[in-house]
Amino acid sequence: MNITETIKHIQPLDESAMKAARERQNQLTKPTGSLGRLEELSVQLAGIQRKPIPVIKDKAVIVMAGDHGVVDEGVSAYPQEVTPQMVLNFLNGGAAINVLTSHVGARVVVVDMGVANDIPSADANLIRRRVGSGTMNLAQGPAMRREQAEESIQSGIEVALAEISKGADILGTGDMGIGNTTPSAAIACALMNVPPQKIAGRGTGVDDDGLKRKITVIENGLKVNQPNSNDGLDVLSKVGGFEIGGLTGVMLAAASKHIPVMIDGFISTAAAMIAVTLAPQCKEYLIAAHRSKENGHILMLDWLGLKPLLDLDMRLGEGTGAALGISMAEAACKVLSDMATFGEAGVSNKDS
Amino acid sequence: MNITETIKHIQPLDESAMKAARERQNQLTKPTGSLGRLEELSVQLAGIQRKPIPVIKDKAVIVMAGDHGVVDEGVSAYPQEVTPQMVLNFLNGGAAINVLTSHVGARVVVVDMGVANDIPSADANLIRRRVGSGTMNLAQGPAMRREQAEESIQSGIEVALAEISKGADILGTGDMGIGNTTPSAAIACALMNVPPQKIAGRGTGVDDDGLKRKITVIENGLKVNQPNSNDGLDVLSKVGGFEIGGLTGVMLAAASKHIPVMIDGFISTAAAMIAVTLAPQCKEYLIAAHRSKENGHILMLDWLGLKPLLDLDMRLGEGTGAALGISMAEAACKVLSDMATFGEAGVSNKDS
Repeated sequence: MNITETIKHIQPLDESAMKAARERQNQLTKPTGSLGRLEELSVQLAGIQRKPIPVIKDKAVIVMAGDHGVVDEGVSAYPQEVTPQMVLNFLNGGAAINVLTSHVGARVVVVDMGVANDIPSADANLIRRRVGSGTMNLAQGPAMRREQAEESIQSGIEVALAEISKGADILGTGDMGIGNTTPSAAIACALMNVPPQKIAGRGTGVDDDGLKRKITVIENGLKVNQPNSNDGLDVLSKVGGFEIGGLTGVMLAAASKHIPVMIDGFISTAAAMIAVTLAPQCKEYLIAAHRSKENGHILMLDWLGLKPLLDLDMRLGEGTGAALGISMAEAACKVLSDMATFGEAGVSNKDS
Repeated sequence: MNITETIKHIQPLDESAMKAARERQNQLTKPTGSLGRLEELSVQLAGIQRKPIPVIKDKAVIVMAGDHGVVDEGVSAYPQEVTPQMVLNFLNGGAAINVLTSHVGARVVVVDMGVANDIPSADANLIRRRVGSGTMNLAQGPAMRREQAEESIQSGIEVALAEISKGADILGTGDMGIGNTTPSAAIACALMNVPPQKIAGRGTGVDDDGLKRKITVIENGLKVNQPNSNDGLDVLSKVGGFEIGGLTGVMLAAASKHIPVMIDGFISTAAAMIAVTLAPQCKEYLIAAHRSKENGHILMLDWLGLKPLLDLDMRLGEGTGAALGISMAEAACKVLSDMATFGEAGVSNKDS
């Protein structure tokens, strides 16, 4: 499916499944509402999956990697060579995302969306969807051509559809790309019309000077490129990144197939903002895993109307927050499906 | 071991294990500190277990049940018969705590610390440590005799030691007892010297009148009993509960054996306040799983100097928050043990 068709397939959540889930929650052996966000989440998941009792068993976190020409401006604390090195680390199982997906019983799907240099690996698990060899420097002009923005989203759609056809009940999003908090912040500034001071943070750990430089770079990028905030593709192409576009595609595809998406942190949230700009109805399919420590993240989540499940001062990306969030979503489903009702357990209810 | 001996065995955390854990965290393939609370938690767990790389495999949530004479004052939305009914539900696997412990791979240990009526079950998994048939009405006099308070703590110590000798690497605490937010709030008021309005909440769901009544009951209980805030046993005996004392004992025993304790919500936190009053050095062994929606919980955690890991609007008790928290602690250990270092993975570090 192309982007337009995918968006056309995104339906509102199934109200009758949500109603059934809510009614069942109220019959389970606990005070109504006492499991808080887990109960709300189970109802949302029912609406997304269009099932009174949603199921999460097959869990995949899609980690998309890309490089960014804007690193020439000195916006990251790490050298660009770390992007492919970390991709190899993902494939070899040594990264945080490997440990946390293993902990929650999810699989990792690693995608090269456009790392600067070819990744020296024969690993069949590496999905190669390279849109280019890193983006251009967004401080001096568009990060990519409009057709490349489309291609990145289209690739994300196809990667997600492949995982869904393999049986995934939920998708998590993750990213790897040295410098990618800069385009993510630029996307947020463009779409929210706020200055970079409110959004940009220290990323992997730049110092005060680095942060000032980053803010100036984003200001310049917005001035030079004048992204149109009503046009998600324009924003993505002018100040975005290949992995960000890919994650946008993952979200659109999942929503079109009634599959929930657990949004990771800062970069994934920027991708979600592009997705919601292209298709506002996809928002209901998104779940914010956690609040990143990166500066403007909570403002971006507010803009999306999403409330994060976790707040653990994490700021790593890779989908690490999404992995933990997926475990919460699975717990929410299990509560709804596996708990006894008052009737089944012979427990007196409040009103009896 | 008796209470005094148990307290004597509680050591400060192992600084050298913590230093080793911190150094290893800084060598793992991620920006230093980017896993936030998971990193801090791994360091605390190293100090508790006295191992540079702590291990959490065998996980047990100890759920203690007891009844409360103060229900005569109409402080709960549910009838007292629900306490034994829910104990049976725990044994039969139908409660929220069963679902959530199963989700995180923990076992549930169910203890009758003093339910009002004998629990009609031949289930060998029910541990019977009945200190009495429910407490007396704390609004009119002491909830229990001082020897009963001691017995409840002693029983908790013995239950915890048994689980630890079976191999538990971490213990979670949980409670069941209709009416038990009232004694828990009274304990907090007594120890913090704050009025019940700041602490008491709606428990399982009392209405405005019920909440007013509850506040008056706590005021009366404190006035009638005059608990001595420097004497944890006095506070426990005058306004506490059998399951609360039991949980205090669990915490003391775990700390004495270098085992971390994942504190659940409002009731477990009241038990922790008693534990810390008796043995201030046990605080470092406690981890606050979550922020309960119950009114004064965050003030109680502040008093303890604990910051909750999760905030999911939960207010069920049973150890449901502790179960989810245990999964976070396990994730923290796995990150520390299983991630590759920069050297192992051939990834360039920030300073290279």
